[in-house]
Amino acid sequence: MKRMMLFSALMLIAALSFAQQALWGGAQVMSPEIHDDNTVTFRLRAPKAVKVQVTGDFLPTQKIKTPYGEFDAPGVADLTENREGVWEYTTPAPLAPELYSYTLLVDGLKINDPANVYMIRDVASVTNVFIIGGGRADLYKVNNVPHGTVSKLWYNSPTLGLNRRLTVYTPAGYETSGKRYPVFYLLHGMGGDENAWSELGRAAQIMDNLIAQGKAKPMILVMTNGNAAQEAAPGESSLGYVAPTMNLPKTMEGSFETHFPEVVKFIDKTYRTKANKQNRAIAGLSMGGFHALHISKQYPDMFNYVGLFSAAIMPDKEVISPIYQEMESKLKTQFAKQPTLYWIAIGKTDFLYKANEEYRKLLDEKGYKYEYFETGEGHIWKNWRIYLSEFAPKLFNR
Amino acid sequence: MKRMMLFSALMLIAALSFAQQALWGGAQVMSPEIHDDNTVTFRLRAPKAVKVQVTGDFLPTQKIKTPYGEFDAPGVADLTENREGVWEYTTPAPLAPELYSYTLLVDGLKINDPANVYMIRDVASVTNVFIIGGGRADLYKVNNVPHGTVSKLWYNSPTLGLNRRLTVYTPAGYETSGKRYPVFYLLHGMGGDENAWSELGRAAQIMDNLIAQGKAKPMILVMTNGNAAQEAAPGESSLGYVAPTMNLPKTMEGSFETHFPEVVKFIDKTYRTKANKQNRAIAGLSMGGFHALHISKQYPDMFNYVGLFSAAIMPDKEVISPIYQEMESKLKTQFAKQPTLYWIAIGKTDFLYKANEEYRKLLDEKGYKYEYFETGEGHIWKNWRIYLSEFAPKLFNR
Repeated sequence: MKRMMLFSALMLIAALSFAQQALWGGAQVMSPEIHDDNTVTFRLRAPKAVKVQVTGDFLPTQKIKTPYGEFDAPGVADLTENREGVWEYTTPAPLAPELYSYTLLVDGLKINDPANVYMIRDVASVTNVFIIGGGRADLYKVNNVPHGTVSKLWYNSPTLGLNRRLTVYTPAGYETSGKRYPVFYLLHGMGGDENAWSELGRAAQIMDNLIAQGKAKPMILVMTNGNAAQEAAPGESSLGYVAPTMNLPKTMEGSFETHFPEVVKFIDKTYRTKANKQNRAIAGLSMGGFHALHISKQYPDMFNYVGLFSAAIMPDKEVISPIYQEMESKLKTQFAKQPTLYWIAIGKTDFLYKANEEYRKLLDEKGYKYEYFETGEGHIWKNWRIYLSEFAPKLFNR
Repeated sequence: MKRMMLFSALMLIAALSFAQQALWGGAQVMSPEIHDDNTVTFRLRAPKAVKVQVTGDFLPTQKIKTPYGEFDAPGVADLTENREGVWEYTTPAPLAPELYSYTLLVDGLKINDPANVYMIRDVASVTNVFIIGGGRADLYKVNNVPHGTVSKLWYNSPTLGLNRRLTVYTPAGYETSGKRYPVFYLLHGMGGDENAWSELGRAAQIMDNLIAQGKAKPMILVMTNGNAAQEAAPGESSLGYVAPTMNLPKTMEGSFETHFPEVVKFIDKTYRTKANKQNRAIAGLSMGGFHALHISKQYPDMFNYVGLFSAAIMPDKEVISPIYQEMESKLKTQFAKQPTLYWIAIGKTDFLYKANEEYRKLLDEKGYKYEYFETGEGHIWKNWRIYLSEFAPKLFNR
């Protein structure tokens, strides 16, 4: 039989690709380069640039003054240019194990690193990411362990009048085990969506690794979209490719919390769950912590484990929703039923620290039992990954 | 009960975010802006840039000379600067309905559009995307129709000695219908992976829309990783965040094709499938078309529907694998069993056009029945989305 020379076809493809890359200014440099000692070099080929900088959470923070006060913002470091028009910056010291985010600044223009295809969107910002392994950060890596399934599926909410998307993690072996599993509902913060925990949150990797190490029970993770006016994450709904925004309607005014039993019902109908309070947990970060607080007290027979991660605590008094009314008596009912775990975690410099302190004081005054976990730093994903990896091992084992 | 002012907390978050955006040079411009008449404006705020261009598949192609011959490459257009340091380009004419990809060039440096968070990776290139709706392109949009579930799950391949990741689309209603479904295996091209068809290929949207319109039968779509040495897409395997490359081992040397029955077995064990030839289809683009050709003839009792989309046709004679041997007699066996559909599609300017022409000549000489579908243009995703939306309606209905 006649055969064409496949290799020549492959060369054509490669050449075409090469032509495109050259034309499109594709970077031939390696960036970031993680050295054996965990120092990291960032590079950009930009012969015509006057100033190139890198900014990211691997750099010491700097204070930023705003009309609302001083804030910690990621630091900035200058790259220097070598003879070939390649700019470089190497961290002066090894970086600690962590998932880091960064972007480059070319003459003041913020760009993603063209040599690094790994990027994650957080609200309206897309940053490049890299991981320094070791310690807890090994939980954030895809390791050679049994992997759970991550699904994006849709449920109908008659209350909200929408088909809505959610992310579900089922543990390795779910499909064929025939067993029933406990369910952990994990909620995102303001401006986030049903993708947040599985992307910047590394939830699937953390659960895969904790379960493989025997540190967490196999469980189903359900990551909802907490913006009650949204079908789905930006770009994944019938609104199309619209610009993401932090200013969304129906986020902390009771709609999401009110409709939540519809999610639980859908999950119990769709998955092999242990459909009772003893086998349900709910936790969330920031706005999601606020949601977890209010959902768990509104439906006191639904969740036996509650986690507030850097939670926004109480609603503004202008916000009128039955969800937020009679808070004191609802908390009383919730704690009278003795949830197995009520877990509060926050970072020392979090702008919500004081509100959490006041809330803990209230719980203390009433004698309501909770566990408290405090970290350094503030309202950042680094802390939320830590909280997830601390909280999940405490679930469904008492 | 004491309440903190939530709104002030929200303002703090917003302010922090604002400070970061300002610091990070976040774009405040709108880009791309799709006007009512389907002209499109691209914008970039870059006061210090000397030259800003846009390149993408919405522009007329240009000829690029390489040592391997002349190729069509995406065109380039210049943006012009206004007084505020904002560069702009508006297409001179409305764009036809399509999913388009583009990047910007700032003084020769290729960057992603900082104002557009929507990007898709294709091998080692990340481009921004936007959709002009209408016509066939409406199939590529998330519409307000029932949505299927997209899952990333892992199977074990004893033959390849790897746990491997795949993407599975189950049609709306799968979870609760109790029914069994036919299965369509859809394979990617060289440098692609298990994410390719669900991202640039818009496979989930195309299937959701075709099924909702009654044009395709509800079916399960299985999108494998055709690089037999890989566990998973770049960034999703235990290799971590390594740079993607076109030069992968074990792609067209028989390993993937040989192991394929393990995938079918896994899917039939894991999902409610109609587990017989009558209810199985296989198709692929480029290298995936090559895989579909060889898998379907190697296992002639497995697939009743075969699709070759811009397929690489025959292996180099240097490649020794039992899969590629006795091709003539295997094709004879396959066609003697009369597959319901053997479908070949290619674009007129595809560099594989001639190879496909020769292959069709061979089929004609032998009197093997196939259907042929020809489009304009070449070896591009635009064509593959068209082929999927033409092929899927032909499945499981004869």
